[in-house]
Amino acid sequence: MVDIATRVWNHKWKIDPIVRSLIDTDFYKLLMCQSVRRYRPDVQVTFSLINRTKSIRLAELIDEGELREQLDHIRSLSLTRGESTWMRGNTFYGKRQMFTPDFMDWFENLRLPPYHLEVRDGQYELTFEGSWPEVMLWEIPALAVLMELRGRAVLDTMGRFEIQVLYARAMTRLWEKIERLRPHDGLKIADFGTRRRHSFLWQDWCVQAMQEGLGSSFTGTSNCLIAKNRDLEAIGTNAHELPMVYSALAESDEALARAPYDVLSDWHEEHDGNLHIILPDTYGTPGFLDRAPDWLAGWTGMRIDSGDPAEGAERAIRWWQSRGEDPTEKLVIFSDGLDAGKIIDLYQRFQGRVRVSFGWGTMLTNDFGGLTEGNSLAPFSLVCKAVEANGRPTVKLSDNPRKAMGPDAEIARYKRVFGVGEQEEMEVVV
Amino acid sequence: MVDIATRVWNHKWKIDPIVRSLIDTDFYKLLMCQSVRRYRPDVQVTFSLINRTKSIRLAELIDEGELREQLDHIRSLSLTRGESTWMRGNTFYGKRQMFTPDFMDWFENLRLPPYHLEVRDGQYELTFEGSWPEVMLWEIPALAVLMELRGRAVLDTMGRFEIQVLYARAMTRLWEKIERLRPHDGLKIADFGTRRRHSFLWQDWCVQAMQEGLGSSFTGTSNCLIAKNRDLEAIGTNAHELPMVYSALAESDEALARAPYDVLSDWHEEHDGNLHIILPDTYGTPGFLDRAPDWLAGWTGMRIDSGDPAEGAERAIRWWQSRGEDPTEKLVIFSDGLDAGKIIDLYQRFQGRVRVSFGWGTMLTNDFGGLTEGNSLAPFSLVCKAVEANGRPTVKLSDNPRKAMGPDAEIARYKRVFGVGEQEEMEVVV
Repeated sequence: MVDIATRVWNHKWKIDPIVRSLIDTDFYKLLMCQSVRRYRPDVQVTFSLINRTKSIRLAELIDEGELREQLDHIRSLSLTRGESTWMRGNTFYGKRQMFTPDFMDWFENLRLPPYHLEVRDGQYELTFEGSWPEVMLWEIPALAVLMELRGRAVLDTMGRFEIQVLYARAMTRLWEKIERLRPHDGLKIADFGTRRRHSFLWQDWCVQAMQEGLGSSFTGTSNCLIAKNRDLEAIGTNAHELPMVYSALAESDEALARAPYDVLSDWHEEHDGNLHIILPDTYGTPGFLDRAPDWLAGWTGMRIDSGDPAEGAERAIRWWQSRGEDPTEKLVIFSDGLDAGKIIDLYQRFQGRVRVSFGWGTMLTNDFGGLTEGNSLAPFSLVCKAVEANGRPTVKLSDNPRKAMGPDAEIARYKRVFGVGEQEEMEVVV
Repeated sequence: MVDIATRVWNHKWKIDPIVRSLIDTDFYKLLMCQSVRRYRPDVQVTFSLINRTKSIRLAELIDEGELREQLDHIRSLSLTRGESTWMRGNTFYGKRQMFTPDFMDWFENLRLPPYHLEVRDGQYELTFEGSWPEVMLWEIPALAVLMELRGRAVLDTMGRFEIQVLYARAMTRLWEKIERLRPHDGLKIADFGTRRRHSFLWQDWCVQAMQEGLGSSFTGTSNCLIAKNRDLEAIGTNAHELPMVYSALAESDEALARAPYDVLSDWHEEHDGNLHIILPDTYGTPGFLDRAPDWLAGWTGMRIDSGDPAEGAERAIRWWQSRGEDPTEKLVIFSDGLDAGKIIDLYQRFQGRVRVSFGWGTMLTNDFGGLTEGNSLAPFSLVCKAVEANGRPTVKLSDNPRKAMGPDAEIARYKRVFGVGEQEEMEVVV
């Protein structure tokens, strides 16, 4: 039976929208947005798209008109009543009213601000300027749109059964990962794959496969829309953009040195429990931990997002011990470049020594490498970052110099202020 | 958008029928049926299900009630007007009115005769008795029902995503075979996989994948319903049941020795061109060819359905040469236990020396081995054969003694009459 109404409806779409909801974004974006509105509401920022994989010439793959349509569509979105109800009424990390009525009133009326799009040297220069709490919400949808348009451009050239077999292969590949993970009781894995997902529908499939395949070892998703639709926990805490912007705003080297702790001090005020997760690597983890105030050692855990993950976790354990804390009560969240094998290795190494959990991103929701001719869906490294705050450049050093960003002079200054010496370079795949 | 009507319709089915049409069967069954009605309309036969893979205890896997429901449903089927129109109006092998008005009038009014079902030693004893032209039409639907019910029994124990991944793996596996076959220009392959297919929908998918993946190298399907629905050629000629029944009816050893040629003499009258395909192995190919009348050497080709296929084709080439025929104008159809690798090997060995084509069966439409836990969908060898004609047992020798069937004394007699000596045993997987 053909459902005539559905078919007609499908054919009258002007575009097939990639992002269809303002909460089709990472949970931590909304948490940080609320925090920024409280502590730094007037900061003006510029976010910019950065394709770290220069060999993938996005402007040659993706039609500019289609990209503009998708971005314009996102600007037309506003929070629906059901989405608002979910944010207001749900418990997040066991807490009710995580989002204040004031924030919700503002968010209900929000439309995303304008974007600026140019083509240079085969790449899109896509930037967003304006008030920090608004501009920051572009990051995830902008990335998701570019990732999915790239995929669609490749799929456009394929036959019907080729496409079906492509997804069959991708499903098989993910399920084999799930089967490798399943025997490891006590694993805790969340989906962190929104920003670089193959597509919304594919991420949604991956999440459901994880639910069925891993049961209680699958702890939830960073994607609020999927968490809402699938009755899952929304997962996430905070990200590098907070210390990056706070640091850019610092008026002196002393203020700069203090900025990353100011971020966490504000966060400490607002949150507790499982939201007290340290992200230590923005300007080099070793120095950050050495100079950290004692109250930070009381926080619940630490997220390891760059550098060698095992080394990062060992460092965290030593640091907690040095501050008189019991590491077995602490939580380490691994979230950088994970895949099934690495998850199992890290789990086996650290289980029992510390509580361990995993935020699995691109290789969960976009592992299509090698599945098409010419490897045309190979993963690549696309980010969208705050590059300026109140007219000053931001800087990130990370524990991997290949993830560093900012003007050279500022990078040198930050390295001096934060005492960062030689760092080991590691390949950035995704 | 949920299509309410479809959903309600789906839920009000009493059963999910496996065979939904009288032409969901092999084309050669209908050709042979017409021939039988012309030459041997009054013969009474018994067909019987034989599971050569004793380790698969079908009566423990498949619910008897479900099996009866499916068989009863088949008895309720009659030819639809559209099916009749297709059979009457279509060209088969380039010929119009392949089916005579007399045959079509009869077929339009046909319902399949009763079945007898018992359970013995973990197996179903399923037999059909009655007039040959009616009973013979049970073979393919009976096999398809048992194959699909076995699959459904396994799938019943699986989760939703497990099932999706199972099909994803099976699709990937078939597509990889198609990708191996694709570079070999000039290959001619037809689907012969109806009887032991995983399911109707899966066969239909396989056929469509072959269409997209192989283009003109995919020559059609033996399944009339799929040929009709997908606008493909219906493929097939004749099978062992003709010589088996003709032979069982022979009143003397002399008549027995002549019976296989009588079959082809009748066929010679009725058909020409690409339907003049010799199936030489019922009672041993070498003796059959040695004693064959010269007019048979003028036929278009030969189907190799047991024994070592390369040896069978070499024997055919030598035979044509010995009879003064040009093998490069003859057609060899391989149809026994094929898979992609074997198809390519045979094609490379014989292309140019003889015209080659392939009837790909079980490993096209039911290659689920190793895809489930405990290999619960491993292929197995199920047949449904004429075991009696007018009260006398039938015998098959084949070129592989493991495919032989009939009472021992009769097998010995047939071996004597047809001069069959030692034969090489080959494993029968499907």
